[in-house]
Amino acid sequence: MKAVRLHHYGEMPLLEEVAEPGITSQYDVIVRVGGAGLCRTDLHIMEGNFKESSGVSLPYILGHENAGWVHEIGSAVSNVAVGDTVIVHPQMSCGFCRACRAGNDMHCSRAEFSGMSVDGGMAQLLKTSARAVVKLEPTFAPQDIAALADAGLTAYHAIKKAVPQLYPGAKVVVIGAGGLGHIGIQCLKALTPAEIIVVDRVPEALELAKGWGADYTVYTSGNQVAKVKEITAGQGAEAIIDFVGEGSALADGVAMLRRAGNYYMVGYGGKLQVPTSDMIATEINFIGNLVGTYNDLVELMTLTAQGKVKLHTTFYPLAAAREAFQDLASGNLRGRGILIPEWP
Amino acid sequence: MKAVRLHHYGEMPLLEEVAEPGITSQYDVIVRVGGAGLCRTDLHIMEGNFKESSGVSLPYILGHENAGWVHEIGSAVSNVAVGDTVIVHPQMSCGFCRACRAGNDMHCSRAEFSGMSVDGGMAQLLKTSARAVVKLEPTFAPQDIAALADAGLTAYHAIKKAVPQLYPGAKVVVIGAGGLGHIGIQCLKALTPAEIIVVDRVPEALELAKGWGADYTVYTSGNQVAKVKEITAGQGAEAIIDFVGEGSALADGVAMLRRAGNYYMVGYGGKLQVPTSDMIATEINFIGNLVGTYNDLVELMTLTAQGKVKLHTTFYPLAAAREAFQDLASGNLRGRGILIPEWP
Amino acid sequence: MKAVRLHHYGEMPLLEEVAEPGITSQYDVIVRVGGAGLCRTDLHIMEGNFKESSGVSLPYILGHENAGWVHEIGSAVSNVAVGDTVIVHPQMSCGFCRACRAGNDMHCSRAEFSGMSVDGGMAQLLKTSARAVVKLEPTFAPQDIAALADAGLTAYHAIKKAVPQLYPGAKVVVIGAGGLGHIGIQCLKALTPAEIIVVDRVPEALELAKGWGADYTVYTSGNQVAKVKEITAGQGAEAIIDFVGEGSALADGVAMLRRAGNYYMVGYGGKLQVPTSDMIATEINFIGNLVGTYNDLVELMTLTAQGKVKLHTTFYPLAAAREAFQDLASGNLRGRGILIPEWP
Amino acid sequence: MKAVRLHHYGEMPLLEEVAEPGITSQYDVIVRVGGAGLCRTDLHIMEGNFKESSGVSLPYILGHENAGWVHEIGSAVSNVAVGDTVIVHPQMSCGFCRACRAGNDMHCSRAEFSGMSVDGGMAQLLKTSARAVVKLEPTFAPQDIAALADAGLTAYHAIKKAVPQLYPGAKVVVIGAGGLGHIGIQCLKALTPAEIIVVDRVPEALELAKGWGADYTVYTSGNQVAKVKEITAGQGAEAIIDFVGEGSALADGVAMLRRAGNYYMVGYGGKLQVPTSDMIATEINFIGNLVGTYNDLVELMTLTAQGKVKLHTTFYPLAAAREAFQDLASGNLRGRGILIPEWP
Repeated sequence: MKAVRLHHYGEMPLLEEVAEPGITSQYDVIVRVGGAGLCRTDLHIMEGNFKESSGVSLPYILGHENAGWVHEIGSAVSNVAVGDTVIVHPQMSCGFCRACRAGNDMHCSRAEFSGMSVDGGMAQLLKTSARAVVKLEPTFAPQDIAALADAGLTAYHAIKKAVPQLYPGAKVVVIGAGGLGHIGIQCLKALTPAEIIVVDRVPEALELAKGWGADYTVYTSGNQVAKVKEITAGQGAEAIIDFVGEGSALADGVAMLRRAGNYYMVGYGGKLQVPTSDMIATEINFIGNLVGTYNDLVELMTLTAQGKVKLHTTFYPLAAAREAFQDLASGNLRGRGILIPEWP
Repeated sequence: MKAVRLHHYGEMPLLEEVAEPGITSQYDVIVRVGGAGLCRTDLHIMEGNFKESSGVSLPYILGHENAGWVHEIGSAVSNVAVGDTVIVHPQMSCGFCRACRAGNDMHCSRAEFSGMSVDGGMAQLLKTSARAVVKLEPTFAPQDIAALADAGLTAYHAIKKAVPQLYPGAKVVVIGAGGLGHIGIQCLKALTPAEIIVVDRVPEALELAKGWGADYTVYTSGNQVAKVKEITAGQGAEAIIDFVGEGSALADGVAMLRRAGNYYMVGYGGKLQVPTSDMIATEINFIGNLVGTYNDLVELMTLTAQGKVKLHTTFYPLAAAREAFQDLASGNLRGRGILIPEWP
Repeated sequence: MKAVRLHHYGEMPLLEEVAEPGITSQYDVIVRVGGAGLCRTDLHIMEGNFKESSGVSLPYILGHENAGWVHEIGSAVSNVAVGDTVIVHPQMSCGFCRACRAGNDMHCSRAEFSGMSVDGGMAQLLKTSARAVVKLEPTFAPQDIAALADAGLTAYHAIKKAVPQLYPGAKVVVIGAGGLGHIGIQCLKALTPAEIIVVDRVPEALELAKGWGADYTVYTSGNQVAKVKEITAGQGAEAIIDFVGEGSALADGVAMLRRAGNYYMVGYGGKLQVPTSDMIATEINFIGNLVGTYNDLVELMTLTAQGKVKLHTTFYPLAAAREAFQDLASGNLRGRGILIPEWP
Repeated sequence: MKAVRLHHYGEMPLLEEVAEPGITSQYDVIVRVGGAGLCRTDLHIMEGNFKESSGVSLPYILGHENAGWVHEIGSAVSNVAVGDTVIVHPQMSCGFCRACRAGNDMHCSRAEFSGMSVDGGMAQLLKTSARAVVKLEPTFAPQDIAALADAGLTAYHAIKKAVPQLYPGAKVVVIGAGGLGHIGIQCLKALTPAEIIVVDRVPEALELAKGWGADYTVYTSGNQVAKVKEITAGQGAEAIIDFVGEGSALADGVAMLRRAGNYYMVGYGGKLQVPTSDMIATEINFIGNLVGTYNDLVELMTLTAQGKVKLHTTFYPLAAAREAFQDLASGNLRGRGILIPEWP
């Protein structure tokens, strides 16, 4: 089959012909890929940032944001059948450790992560496991919703944690209205009555944000902290959802946070630096966010089915993977990029 | 009356004769001070660290950790009567703002803080307000429990937040077995079934910690992170309660934290520095902690009445305040230092 | 001033001329009433059902659902000023007991309840206390929002408790689309992504419910349980909000509840009867609901200001109070009835 | 092998020779039974109370409270190995439904319950599944801890829900100091700082309760409600844990409950009857409780290993099952009865 494999860190992956995956365990599920999302994390993988932590050997297939149709199943699989439309949770969890037994798939002590520690979905077929597939209504087109498997799930997971804080009258700042941010804004609108302030450095992104549910938009022209303070009557916001996590976004976000507020870190790349006296004086919290649980993904798909979450995507054929990665790296990709394998 | 007043930042406070405070509002309460605790924050105040944030004018009376007996009350006060034994919450809250209406006295938008923004309790009499006094059984001796008003309350508040995480089998690291730490350890023992690992650089403090409830003690000889990892089967602890908040304690604490764990910051002085990628990869949280609520203080006094929390104190007469501050600054003070005003 | 006073249990109250209330304590607030809602509880009061529990002596002024403008304030009042538009929380709480210190005004150990234990708002002036008044934007017309002070607040309080259960895909049954129910439906829509099933025995109420946000409406024609089971794929709903609390609604509601579901009791009059084996086998919960907290009322007013909650009301001049009560008792009152005092 | 099978409802089960169970699925686990607890539910099963709900066909082997050693495992089992000491969660959960994916094994939509819907553990061998076995240290003797698998787990599960309410100074009433109650008392002591009031009608049980951690004991001589009111300063307790759930315990429990309190129903047999006006006026809640989660069982075993929970048991050889059931039915069984299969 056709697949996009990484052969050397520091180089682009190659489209090539590889052997099809086969069922080797009774809970295996092989998915015919309908859409595989591109993620900034793929760029970090290529750079070698996860070389040691992932434990993977090159070459292997990229792609951790996948949806498609069930192609083949192991003998014990009963939650999906061949032909079912599915979205694929990136984490294959064991189901037996304490984390799994509490529903926290993302903290499974024996997990594999598609496209990071094992072969991913930038291919015609993807091998995953029964615990990772969510069955969808056949009306879903995989390429339309693939980006929910990781970008969407991560955004939803963070927003769901923020719900108890976001009472009527509370304000929430979303930093970054890009791939994750635009889903986060829609999830905030669906789950909370809070007023949403979106901060970004791209005017077009802010314009789109209004359509997704932003009540206020703030362009990062230098006085963004002052503007957020003004909108929040000088107090700052009850919650910050930071989809950037690097550069000046961090200091800005901390300055925009209200006493007793929560700062949800979703983006990464920079370093959080806060005097401990500031954390204590205002009793603020910094909350890390990984990809969500299996049930989170089911809930997000329900919101999508209800029309409350819509994705902004750009499609590329699988064969144009390198071009897509170049667009992502250079900032020329609008919305989430999705690779679509051709099928005869 | 006799009082310990700060006249100049960078200098020691002076014991002097000042006018007695009088009732000026119907909710005023004047307390005859039985004990006023010394706190590292007093040293920071003297250094001028809170010069701007406190908004106070010099000279003024230090002391935010107070207990005594009610001396005089305003016309509307009904929760205490003259002669009652009381402990004094350091924050005088308004009772009307959103924070107060949710019980969060420490986030009151119009609060005054005894010994920081207004005159404190290192004096014969202290003026506070009805909302700040907790009535105690007359069997309590104020000098024995004064240190609970701030050191104890802050420790209790942080530990109470950690309760939901600390299931049977969970492990918690306490960094620093000093003034706050020794109360924190006892609160952990009273409120949770978790196993307690105490980390300190003073061997005698570790020895005492065993008596307070430590299940493991770790001396900071350089391999403290490795030791905690060993005790926690390589995983780290579900919660870190950091009573130091500066120096190498911060990096140590982060390294001792388990996936999905919570780091409770109580001490201050240093700067938290964490790559956002580390926060995300393991989904860890950093929780700021200020002094507790009024109900927290009531609960802590109940634990004390039940014999579950005991204080380690050193008494000084009020007239020896300078000596006491010198002992505190030089590390020669064991347990919490308490100033006791003389009464004829 | 003009006031509607109850002189004898079992009889209608009388409109009469009474002395105006005056300031007697520094936290008193006297409100010029703009609207006073009628409530089924008023009928129960007239019947003498609260004779002993309220501890009130006849005659006294009815009316616990009030809004208006501040007319006079005690010397210590600073949260409102004369002329401010306000809605009045029915409970005057003390601010000092454990419940008040946790924000739970409705469990204050020394509370008075306007129109039940002391004079209420069916009059030109109402005496209440600073802790009970919520300042509103002057754009609010008191008669339009008075019903939120009790009916609305009770509905909001119950729905807020249900939020953590109502994830995307969850279903909630609202029993009774009347005075409280119609506010409850709108609060559910504003606070949760759940699908809302409204059950009522009045077809017109169901028709209106669709406009307020009902996703499904079920007419109680005898097969209402079966219909809810059908809508919920045979499982029942994650939450029941019962605004009726008597008659067949109770057994119906229990039968409509899913495993591990919560039954929120808001209406009253009947008796809950459940075999304990049924509670255990499915692990269901029954949650009592009283009027909400002060902050709940502020939040509800925010939702109203945002246009997310609208009231269905019928206005009567204060002088027509008896006619209004007759309409309420006979079922001829549509929406919430509001008495409006005339002012020269 | 030897097994105790029920052949006819309304009759005693028979000890007989039956075929040994064999591995038929890759996640099967066969346990050599070391101890099988007797439960009041077994008596209800024999009476036919679960005839329809269980869906089981007679004859079948009783016993849902089991511990032993792993005898044989299916090909995919990796969480236990042959020879491991294990305790057996009574519920075999699927691992795929929403409840399982949130950790709520007891609400699994495809669960089987050992000894109720399929063959149980009153036999030499028990067939269960990998998701139901908890690996223990080999120092545990199965007959000593078998009763924790159901009685203990149910008690622990209810107490864990009560933790957030049970702050220092709160009071909790335990109704019934028998098989479940004595474990519940010890769990309360281990997990909370609350003061424990134990109510029972057997003086010896109350005497034992003091050793398990009761702070107060109340004999049900007719004035038990008044006594609890006296102990709680006239207010009632913040929580009731009712291990009886029938007869006068229910009305007593409701009368002992404080405003805003929670009533945890664990025992069953009677009918809860509460006027809805009482639920509303005091805002009380009734919480159903089923057996706990898998993680609950792991935590309970940790408490047991730490010496914080000890069981009161009476041993019978498997061959004396009928005698044991007679002792249970007639009230002659002290502590929890455990059947021990003989092994050559």
